Formats: sequence, C-alpha cells, structure tokens
Amino acid sequence: MNKTFSPSFHTLRWEGGIDGTLQLLDQRKLPQEKEYLTCRAVDDLVEALVSLAVRGAPAIGVAAAYGICLGMQKAADHAPAGALALLDESKAKLAASRPTAVNLFWALDRMKKAACRFFAEQPAASVPDLRRRLLEEANAICEEDKQMCRAIGQNGLSLMPEDGGVLTHCNAGALATAGIGTALAAIYAAHQAGKRFTVYVDETRPLLQGARLTAWELAQYAIPSVLICDNMAAWLMKRGKIKAVIAGADRIAANGDTANKIGTLGLSILAKRFGIPFYIAAPSSTFDLSISHGRDIPIEERSADEVHAFAGRRVAPSAIPAYNPAFDITDAADITAIITEKGVFYPPLEKAIKDYLEPK
Amino acid sequence: MNKTFSPSFHTLRWEGGIDGTLQLLDQRKLPQEKEYLTCRAVDDLVEALVSLAVRGAPAIGVAAAYGICLGMQKAADHAPAGALALLDESKAKLAASRPTAVNLFWALDRMKKAACRFFAEQPAASVPDLRRRLLEEANAICEEDKQMCRAIGQNGLSLMPEDGGVLTHCNAGALATAGIGTALAAIYAAHQAGKRFTVYVDETRPLLQGARLTAWELAQYAIPSVLICDNMAAWLMKRGKIKAVIAGADRIAANGDTANKIGTLGLSILAKRFGIPFYIAAPSSTFDLSISHGRDIPIEERSADEVHAFAGRRVAPSAIPAYNPAFDITDAADITAIITEKGVFYPPLEKAIKDYLEPK
Repeated sequence: MNKTFSPSFHTLRWEGGIDGTLQLLDQRKLPQEKEYLTCRAVDDLVEALVSLAVRGAPAIGVAAAYGICLGMQKAADHAPAGALALLDESKAKLAASRPTAVNLFWALDRMKKAACRFFAEQPAASVPDLRRRLLEEANAICEEDKQMCRAIGQNGLSLMPEDGGVLTHCNAGALATAGIGTALAAIYAAHQAGKRFTVYVDETRPLLQGARLTAWELAQYAIPSVLICDNMAAWLMKRGKIKAVIAGADRIAANGDTANKIGTLGLSILAKRFGIPFYIAAPSSTFDLSISHGRDIPIEERSADEVHAFAGRRVAPSAIPAYNPAFDITDAADITAIITEKGVFYPPLEKAIKDYLEPK
Repeated sequence: MNKTFSPSFHTLRWEGGIDGTLQLLDQRKLPQEKEYLTCRAVDDLVEALVSLAVRGAPAIGVAAAYGICLGMQKAADHAPAGALALLDESKAKLAASRPTAVNLFWALDRMKKAACRFFAEQPAASVPDLRRRLLEEANAICEEDKQMCRAIGQNGLSLMPEDGGVLTHCNAGALATAGIGTALAAIYAAHQAGKRFTVYVDETRPLLQGARLTAWELAQYAIPSVLICDNMAAWLMKRGKIKAVIAGADRIAANGDTANKIGTLGLSILAKRFGIPFYIAAPSSTFDLSISHGRDIPIEERSADEVHAFAGRRVAPSAIPAYNPAFDITDAADITAIITEKGVFYPPLEKAIKDYLEPK
C-alpha cells in the first residue's frame, strides 16, 4: 500500500503568532485555480464563510476559532474587560455567518469559555496573555480536528466494502476539515487498508461541491472515482453499483436526525429502499444535544441565483422564482450508523448518542 | 378563466408541400434565444435529434415522420422501388439517432407501412403520389399528436390537486410534442379549469431541460412555478409542499415499467415514501408491447462531457470519469396511474395496458 495520504494542499492554516493571519484555500476557485486567501480581520473571514471560500462543518468550526484570534488583534490596546467585549463582538459576527452547522457555535462557545476560564484562573493576566491563550485554544481545536478525522477514518474503515461502489454527496473530505475529512476519511482509511471500491461522487447542485471539490480532492489522493449528477443515484443503486452511501453532517439532533447538504435526505430514502447501508460520518462537535428532534434544526436558505445559474452561467429564465435550501434533514430511522471519533453509533441512535456523548 | 393556451411558439412545423422543409424551435438555445432551425435533409434532422435541438418522445416521433418526407425529396427522379429503398435508408438513419424513445420507431414504422400499403393499393402510382401520401401520413401523425395532448390533458385534469404543489421532471410539455404536451397538458388543463397549484420544476441535470425548457414554457402559459435542483425534491415532499408528481415517458413496457429522463426513478421512490401520487402521462405510441419488462428497455448513455461541463464551461476536473445515462426505469409498482389519451390506467398496470392497448 503505497498511497500517500499527505495531500498537497491545506484547507486552512494559521500563519504566525498572535498577530498572524488565517490562510484559507479558496474553495470558490477550485478546481480551476488553487489559490490561498488571507484573512486579516473578522470581516474577511465572515465574507469567506458566507461566500463559501471555506465550508464544511468541521472546517467552519476551526476557522471560526481562528476568527476569534483575528478579532482579538484589535484588542492590543484594550483593558481585559474591553478585550472580552471585543471577543463577544467577533463571536456575534461569526455566529451570524451560517446558521446550520453547529460546529460554528460549538467552536465559538469553546473560545469564549477559554477566555472566561483564563481570567477566572489568572485575574491579573494581560490582554496579550489572553491572546496567546486563545491562539493555543484555536490551535488545540485545529489539532483535535485532525485527530478526529483520523479516528473517524479508523472507525469507518471496516464499514466500507472491499469493492463495488461507495456513493458520497457534497464534500465531507479534507476540504471540509483541518484534517483528512469525515466521510472521505473512512474512504481514505479503507483504501489505505487495501480495499478497492470506486467512489461515486454526486455533483451536488447547486454549488457543485462534489464536482468541484470532492472530485478534485479524490484525484489528489488517487482514489478511483466517477462523477454523476445527483439524480442518477437511484439508477446506480437499482443496477447494484452502490454497496454503501456515506455523507457528512452539519448538525445532528439528540435523536439522531441529521442535517446535511441538500440531497442527503433523498439518498437515505433511496438507500433504504435498495437495502444499501447509509452512513453519516461526523465528529462529536456536530451533535447538538440541546435539540431533541431534527425538525428544530434551522435550515439555511441561500440565494435563488445559485439555482438559476450553473457554474456562474445563468440558465433559467429570470421570470421563474427558485427555492434554495442549503440543507435537509435525514430521519434517524434511515441512518444505518453514525461514525464518530468516539466510536460507531448504531440504532437506537438516541440511546447511543446519550451513552457516548452526554456528560455523565 | 382567461388564460390563453395558444403558445407563441411552435415546437416543430412542416412548411410547404412535398418539397417543403421542417422547422424546429432550436431547444439547445432556449431560453436565451428563440430561434428556428430549418431541416432540409434527413442528415439535418439526425443532427438535430442527436444534439437535442428537438427532443421529447412524442416530438421525436412527429419529427421522424417528417424526416421521411425530407428523405423522399431525393427520390424525385426514382422509380417506385428505388423510392422505397431510399425510404428504408432514411428510416435507418433516423432510427439510429436516439435509442430509448419508442415513439421514434413507432412513427418510422407507421410511415413505412403507409408507403407499402399505398403501393399495394395503387400499384400504378407514381413517386410524387407516394410523396404526397407520406406527407399526409406525417401530417396525420402530427395532428393526432395534438389531439392526443388535449385528451391527456382532459384525462389528467381531475388527478391534479386544487392547490399546493405539483412536481414535474424534465420537459413533458409543448416543447416535447406537437401539441400542448403530456405531463404539462394535465397541468394546463387543470389550470384552465381553475385549479391553482404551483408547479415545482426539477432543473433536470445534466442538460437542464427543466430549468431551460419547462421553466420557459410554463412562463409562456403564465403558470405559477418554482425552480428547484433535482436533489431538493425529497425535502419539499417531507415538508408537505408536493401533492402530486407528474412526468412523461420515453418508453413503457407491457408490465408498466417506464423509461423516462434520468431522475424519474428516484422521484417515484420518494413519492411512494411520502404517500404522494406519482403519475406518468404518455400517449399510446409510447407503449412498447414487444417488451414485457423494463429491464429490456435500452438506455441511452450520452457523453461524459455533459456531466463535466455546461455550455462549454467545464466545472469538474478532467481527471475524473463521469457516468451519464440519459434515462432510468421506474417500477410499475411505484406508479399510481398512467394517463394516456385513451384513458387513465390504474394498477394492475399490466392488465390495464393489455385491456386498453392490445389489438383485440
């Protein structure tokens, strides 16, 4: 097994010390251009999040943590109380960028708690001390994300078939995390272990994360793959070409209902119909135990322009309105298992989630 | 009810007598440009069929019938036997253009039979006489197609809901027939009768017949409509927005299994899951009683380029192969009813098809 699993790109990386910058691989430009974007302020990152230069629930969380560090650069001359107020301001701006991925709120809360704990434990600390502490915390979130990816890969490995096809939707890979991905981590680990299935890649309209990002990423890792339009999945399943479906998640409710990229719900229903296992791969930071049922997960609606246009080129007449929900909710009952860094959760998912994730 | 149902376009029209031309609305250019294409020879029409300047099973049939008339223009100096040989040659060229829609073969066979019957009944007839007879036959096929559309509309009217949403896939409208369509005919008839549902239009990747053609056509008829990406249908259904699904067909086997635009199979399964009626609307010329089961219907595979790119703009990396079946097969068991010009066929579909369509 000679495959290298050190990709030739980094999805996001902090450069420098507390006065550093956040480098993002600009995913709006892939696969045509591999260009890095430098965020020097919170507003730069908010713009990058809203326009999907960086996307994918775990990556959004890591980026937001570093976003707090960017925000604190303006606190250089502030007293501690003013610095905390500035932190809250940055946190609010970042929290307003995307509504569905809970990792965003999870990371921001963790940064806020780290700051509060820091001053509680060291009441005489200075703002530069706080900033160093916050950069440490963001680095820890980033490092944990990488470890989480590896653990998900290992936990998901045995669920992947030896051969045949595995279908994935959107991009839940290295481009969606600081590490090697969630759903794609299981695929990478399985290929590294010698399994030889083909990955079928849903193009994932409207923004084509599958065609643009997953197709590009799988090529970097030299994984055999085939691109399809989203509406071809049922026919592939009926023809026996798909042995498993694996997707990521943007938020998972306490009962196991899962918000993920629009189209995931349909795949889960089709997989069940054809007796194909349907897996979700996500870190524990994607679970929102404050929400008991999927129906309460907020779903982002994006601009109709994304549906009217294809790869930036308008195709539909302007007269027709368009509906553009960015996510949908898959029923827990249609999920074969959720692969996390803490283990594989099998139904009943509500109980598994409680057992693994609820504070004892 | 003041809606006008005389559209401001014609999908295809023969201009002139036996030396005339076939005018096609060039559907590759819609909705940006409304341009007519003139076919003066069989090869022009074959090119138009292959490149989808004209598409939709019933329209393909009508166009092919006129294609025979174009081919016979070269027979002006031929003896009757030579003219019949030329007819066979044109028929073979046209038959090779698209494999799935049976209406193509149906129309070509009907033209051939008309020619044979003509010489059987009038052994002394001239080639110009034959050409006049063939143009009459093509005109009859065209006129019957228009009547068929109206009858399907009337037969489907009562199955359409009063309000809410009706989902349709690809284009089974005026642009797919010589008349007002099949699936869309039921929608037009219901709106003309005062029903007020919204039509949700699947964009229908890869060639976007929904976004380009159905969206444009529904706007011509002033029907309220909303464009969605194909992968959004499940979420709309789950949210209770869809009261019925209606699609056309390219070929229907004797057991009711139905070939239609890729993506139809998935919709039928999703509709069943959510308890939503799923209708197919098609003329009797779409039934192929020589095929007992859907698995024997040939499925056209088109170029991977259609999946990789749109309108010359490549979106996916060239390294990844793509799969591009143009059609899939919906199980008869997932079809609530098939709406035809002869009546509405309910399950058991095999029996209904036999009762209505088999020669007694």
